[in-house]
Amino acid sequence: MEDLSIVKIGGNIIEDSDALDQFLTLFAQLPGHKVLVHGGGKKATQLLPQLGIEPKMVNGRRITDAATLEVVTMVYGGLVNKNVVAQLQAKGINAIGLSGADANTIQAQKRSVTEIDYGFAGDVKGVDGETIGKLIHIGLTPVFCALTHNKKGQLLNTNADTITAEVAIGLSNHFNTTIYYCFELDGVLEDINRKDSVIKHINTTTYDTLVAKGIIVDGMLPKMHNCFHALKNGVKQVKIGNLGMFQTANTNYTTLVL
Amino acid sequence: MEDLSIVKIGGNIIEDSDALDQFLTLFAQLPGHKVLVHGGGKKATQLLPQLGIEPKMVNGRRITDAATLEVVTMVYGGLVNKNVVAQLQAKGINAIGLSGADANTIQAQKRSVTEIDYGFAGDVKGVDGETIGKLIHIGLTPVFCALTHNKKGQLLNTNADTITAEVAIGLSNHFNTTIYYCFELDGVLEDINRKDSVIKHINTTTYDTLVAKGIIVDGMLPKMHNCFHALKNGVKQVKIGNLGMFQTANTNYTTLVL
Repeated sequence: MEDLSIVKIGGNIIEDSDALDQFLTLFAQLPGHKVLVHGGGKKATQLLPQLGIEPKMVNGRRITDAATLEVVTMVYGGLVNKNVVAQLQAKGINAIGLSGADANTIQAQKRSVTEIDYGFAGDVKGVDGETIGKLIHIGLTPVFCALTHNKKGQLLNTNADTITAEVAIGLSNHFNTTIYYCFELDGVLEDINRKDSVIKHINTTTYDTLVAKGIIVDGMLPKMHNCFHALKNGVKQVKIGNLGMFQTANTNYTTLVL
Repeated sequence: MEDLSIVKIGGNIIEDSDALDQFLTLFAQLPGHKVLVHGGGKKATQLLPQLGIEPKMVNGRRITDAATLEVVTMVYGGLVNKNVVAQLQAKGINAIGLSGADANTIQAQKRSVTEIDYGFAGDVKGVDGETIGKLIHIGLTPVFCALTHNKKGQLLNTNADTITAEVAIGLSNHFNTTIYYCFELDGVLEDINRKDSVIKHINTTTYDTLVAKGIIVDGMLPKMHNCFHALKNGVKQVKIGNLGMFQTANTNYTTLVL
């Protein structure tokens, strides 16, 4: 099987046009088959009050009502996705922007209502790795935004880290997949106050210790859960680092293995 | 060569959810290879004042400044395109939404400034019919919005009728192409006050007479210009009619030939 890199960039990079340009230049230079997944940044959150829509959050998570879904569809699927694609085209990468509805690549189901009704939030049910593979084999580089659909006409808002892990799993029958989670830090840090304290390797055993010690907390917990979920389902490697992690000289990032 | 239908729906259908659903059902039933091109409707025009952007028009044409381009990218490329794709998926059509930047399908150049500066308006330079053909041959139905790019990172706003004609021309080396322009009337009318006065056939000679008589005027002139431009460049047939024109019993529409 051929190698494939699937790279996720967070909202902080999307929002900063210089950082985004720097990242896309490095992504364009990454050899071999590749896929990009992007978050949305703060643009959707900024647009909501301008359009008279009150952002609703419960336990730090966005509640996607119908009006909010319209805004995230505009921002993630339109503004961000099409601009990233156009910028990659300028750098010689034949990018193609996709939501999960496009080519039925990512099917999801509306999250069931328990104590909290998250609204139009989608939990991934299945990824069509074969069709994504066909797009790659005709020379295209898929660029996914954080939208899925339920195959019944409904778009759904889905976390970009989750999309990354699920697309990587879906492609693992067709490629040797490596996930790169790019964010503002150099990797998972031993000490949050020391940016140079990157933990180079984490496996399932050391992970449990890091959680027990309180080193991996808060927003890193679901991220790491996604990583191990991917590794347990066919993904070869997961790397977490900054947007310069692709440069061959750079070995300063966190690698996760089982 | 195989047959291919390329269908354009206007903003009036996009805005009316019942009409859109009815149209998409008929489009889904249309046999053979097909491509959809959609306009944007009034949503972009409604959003502009809500976001504090003053819509700028000169001679009835929109001036696309940077802020307006952001809004049309959100509405055409995001909201409308992704919802049309999700609805087609529900009807069993494996749709894939595209701007001209996606897979570099439609390259354009920024319209040069003469008396009027149209801003980020794009005139089509080239269509990659081979790549669009590859997408079709892996079982996908392309759905184009009215956005192109200049291959230098800039998205551009481009008229949907023009995109339809140019994509049809670009595909004519690979398929026998027929264009369907669907709108709110049954076809080109002899008498605008009599909805049943559909002119069944127009050729270049009768077209000149219809223009001289003042029967084809205003917004129909650029539309007809697009049609004959397409016919002169490899498109087999152009048909203009209402959204029910695909029903086999329906023969009440205008057919254009050279």
